[in-house]
Amino acid sequence: MSIPDMLWSGWGDPERAAHLPDSVTDLLRELLGVREEPDQPVKLAEIEPPAPRLSARILADVVGDEHVRTDDETRIRHTRGKSTPDLLRIRAGDARTAPDAVVLPGSHDEVAELLARCSRHRIAVVPFGGGTSVVGGLTPETGGFAGMIALDLRRLDRLLCVDSVSRTATLQAGLRAPRAEELLNEQGFTLGHFPQSFEWASIGGFAATRSSGQASAGYGRFDEMVVALTLATPRGTLEVGRSPRSAAGPDLRQLVLGSEGAFGVITDVTVRVRPLPETRAHEGWLFRSFSEGTSAIRALAQDGPLPTVLRLSDETETMIGLARPSELGGPKSGGCLAICGYDGAPAEVAQRRAKVRALLRSRGGEFLGDEPGENWAEGRFSAPYLRDALLDAGVLAETLETAGFWSNLPRLYDAVRLTLTHELPSSVVMCHVSHVYPAGASLYFTVVTAQGDDPLARWQRAKAAVSDAIIEAGGTISHHHGVGVDHRDWFVREAGPLGVEVLRAVKHRLDPEGILNPGVLIPPAG
Amino acid sequence: MSIPDMLWSGWGDPERAAHLPDSVTDLLRELLGVREEPDQPVKLAEIEPPAPRLSARILADVVGDEHVRTDDETRIRHTRGKSTPDLLRIRAGDARTAPDAVVLPGSHDEVAELLARCSRHRIAVVPFGGGTSVVGGLTPETGGFAGMIALDLRRLDRLLCVDSVSRTATLQAGLRAPRAEELLNEQGFTLGHFPQSFEWASIGGFAATRSSGQASAGYGRFDEMVVALTLATPRGTLEVGRSPRSAAGPDLRQLVLGSEGAFGVITDVTVRVRPLPETRAHEGWLFRSFSEGTSAIRALAQDGPLPTVLRLSDETETMIGLARPSELGGPKSGGCLAICGYDGAPAEVAQRRAKVRALLRSRGGEFLGDEPGENWAEGRFSAPYLRDALLDAGVLAETLETAGFWSNLPRLYDAVRLTLTHELPSSVVMCHVSHVYPAGASLYFTVVTAQGDDPLARWQRAKAAVSDAIIEAGGTISHHHGVGVDHRDWFVREAGPLGVEVLRAVKHRLDPEGILNPGVLIPPAG
Repeated sequence: MSIPDMLWSGWGDPERAAHLPDSVTDLLRELLGVREEPDQPVKLAEIEPPAPRLSARILADVVGDEHVRTDDETRIRHTRGKSTPDLLRIRAGDARTAPDAVVLPGSHDEVAELLARCSRHRIAVVPFGGGTSVVGGLTPETGGFAGMIALDLRRLDRLLCVDSVSRTATLQAGLRAPRAEELLNEQGFTLGHFPQSFEWASIGGFAATRSSGQASAGYGRFDEMVVALTLATPRGTLEVGRSPRSAAGPDLRQLVLGSEGAFGVITDVTVRVRPLPETRAHEGWLFRSFSEGTSAIRALAQDGPLPTVLRLSDETETMIGLARPSELGGPKSGGCLAICGYDGAPAEVAQRRAKVRALLRSRGGEFLGDEPGENWAEGRFSAPYLRDALLDAGVLAETLETAGFWSNLPRLYDAVRLTLTHELPSSVVMCHVSHVYPAGASLYFTVVTAQGDDPLARWQRAKAAVSDAIIEAGGTISHHHGVGVDHRDWFVREAGPLGVEVLRAVKHRLDPEGILNPGVLIPPAG
Repeated sequence: MSIPDMLWSGWGDPERAAHLPDSVTDLLRELLGVREEPDQPVKLAEIEPPAPRLSARILADVVGDEHVRTDDETRIRHTRGKSTPDLLRIRAGDARTAPDAVVLPGSHDEVAELLARCSRHRIAVVPFGGGTSVVGGLTPETGGFAGMIALDLRRLDRLLCVDSVSRTATLQAGLRAPRAEELLNEQGFTLGHFPQSFEWASIGGFAATRSSGQASAGYGRFDEMVVALTLATPRGTLEVGRSPRSAAGPDLRQLVLGSEGAFGVITDVTVRVRPLPETRAHEGWLFRSFSEGTSAIRALAQDGPLPTVLRLSDETETMIGLARPSELGGPKSGGCLAICGYDGAPAEVAQRRAKVRALLRSRGGEFLGDEPGENWAEGRFSAPYLRDALLDAGVLAETLETAGFWSNLPRLYDAVRLTLTHELPSSVVMCHVSHVYPAGASLYFTVVTAQGDDPLARWQRAKAAVSDAIIEAGGTISHHHGVGVDHRDWFVREAGPLGVEVLRAVKHRLDPEGILNPGVLIPPAG
């Protein structure tokens, strides 16, 4: 396997683990009332996944012996995703949901054949890209099945073609984002998709979960980039997308996007690409309040021009960020930090930047220079490392997100904050807007709290309450993390009974035995 | 009924009928070899629709007697749509597919109750908005049903609310486009959706068929404007859209958009609106060839800025337009006419216009001034009137369209043109690009030919051949007209067997008796 393994008990490259200075640890403990001794993960070698329930023979026939793994370590590394609850469980040595085997197909046809066989033998299948789900997307309910395999797509790692006239590229699903960027960059293009999971996530995962990247203001969401895709299902292959747009019936691409492995396995996607930008710049702005800042970025979203990156932290997130004054060129007295990023040709960027600056100034923004922007850009993928360090220090950190229409955003923001602070006293709740649309925006919350005696139960209670609050306040249960198992009960409320029936009908047609990620997205049938 | 009736045998307001000067008639006859005597429609009073097959009682119980119409004239006016084959049939007095009754519900709940009753009694239902379908969307296959009703939505004609913060508006489905614009304009907003059918088409129809307007470069397609919608089905109501964008599963909005009344009846949609532009300007450009022009508009679509309206006629369409030299300020020697339109604030328009002009000049465009643009804008909704006059003169005129990726556009263009000129010798085949995307564009063809002995059969042969050619050349069977019954067999090839199965599963779940527009979009089950 040419792709490095992610830290089994946490995020990313073990060499890049974050270390909290004692002063920060002390501060957090003081602030959050952390009393626990540091909570260290068990040793990998000490974890014993359950005995495999299935013979790998029928799968090895398809992909070859060397591409079926049943060793404990590989199974543990494919157990669950990277939500904080996932980490709490695996750090405690709980590998009860480990797949019986990890299978690595090398082609679309092998995927299709594996699905047909698994369907015949009632073996549950978890499509596995980067393994970065934070919503239980890799933890299906496999009761009643003969076994469960993780279908690791890392061998589907090629850039299949670039159409430089149409500015599209066809990428295999298992391609990791950094490698995809590298291959496209070599031909002068970029995808421009940089979610926080960028360094580990896969192209197929982006499509299956409707990922949205930090530069979505400029490049769009991943689901907006996709113009065609191929889906392997137990009942055959679905190929959709003959044209960027069409009036030939419902848009089947939009039925596959967001299907989270429950309808089939996406094996390749054709996406819109753009010329590699000549320059990339970031800058910081300060607003007096979240509502002033929100109104300013709404003006950009509705009347333009849009920066490539646009995010606005609330007062708390700004304050926590300011605990490191070096990042912001000196302490400020409150307010809300906004980051604007600009990709493009120098002249175009200069023009756009000037217009954005004029608008933000007219809306009360104070220009902070490039440094806060460049600092943000430098650390943009590192937050998950910090979470591991916090977990080690007895602190629980987790994120959740929603989106809604602009007019409803204040209500949604209040509902989430009030619920979290009620459920988790002595916690820090921070928020930012990081994805904007003409009609609305996302809200992304980070919660930091003491782990307490039973951090998992504590978090799950709070998470359920806040999910209720989101649905009751008219928000969507996820703007870009997805549904998985964790959000399913609320997604059911969001989609309504008839919406769920429609999705179940689609699933039943494509996956009549229900082997694909059972319980992910929609409740198992019956 | 406060909405004026459309000409039963043709297009639009009878008072605005076009009259061809004798010189043009002579020219067309010369060019196309028309030998027939003028073909006049029969008289409305002479047409006898089949005897109604059902008692209106169970429907009148829901909506009241006065909202169930069974008179011949109303039934004839709800027979089929406005394609040239539809007109040929109705002009010949063929009302065999007339609905047994026309029912006018006054609310979403009445629609839902009607669908439940029709489902129980196996009465086929055709949702009827503006009645402007050109793909057989109003001509279901009603064999095996107890009867068929047209569900005329004209009473659902209200603007339900405007959210000026989020810049969205909720419109009932039966609202006609001009009235919707009027109501929005009163509040300072515009939808910006101006398809050729604008003067007659309905909001629900736009959503059900994925309509695209002439200003799509600036305002987007209708399916891109929709952020939420309500669908009444025989099994209950589906409400979708809590946020402009979401990662909560597949996008169910995109499953309803383009469903053409086969899954349910759209009763309201919430759409993005924009501030009413202060200025609106149009201008003309000339390119030496269609390929030079295509390359120039591709540059605008990919790198911006985009005009609000952007269309490019091929050599033939340009030449035919030039037959009226007053429109273009003097004859030109060949080339391809492009129209650019700009909506917006004066300063923004001036800036954008300057950039577009610089780019078009650098790509070989010759600026023709505003007159060709303003002429185009003035006549933008009048082509269907011209078709009636041509039919009267023994000439058959029809349009068809497709879309594809930029790199495939030349192949698609050639395939359609060659097939049409082969199937219809002595015809004039014209084309324009009128909807552009970063990855591709639409191609809209107009064919003018002699009616011959059996114009319907002649056209249907040619249309089948050109539909084959579109699918074989990798295009979509429709960019904005939709599928209906006419495109269904080719849509089946485009979606593939599994795609059709998925759509059939969705239909079966929402409409188990199959009463909704049977045979439209997908072949009837069994």
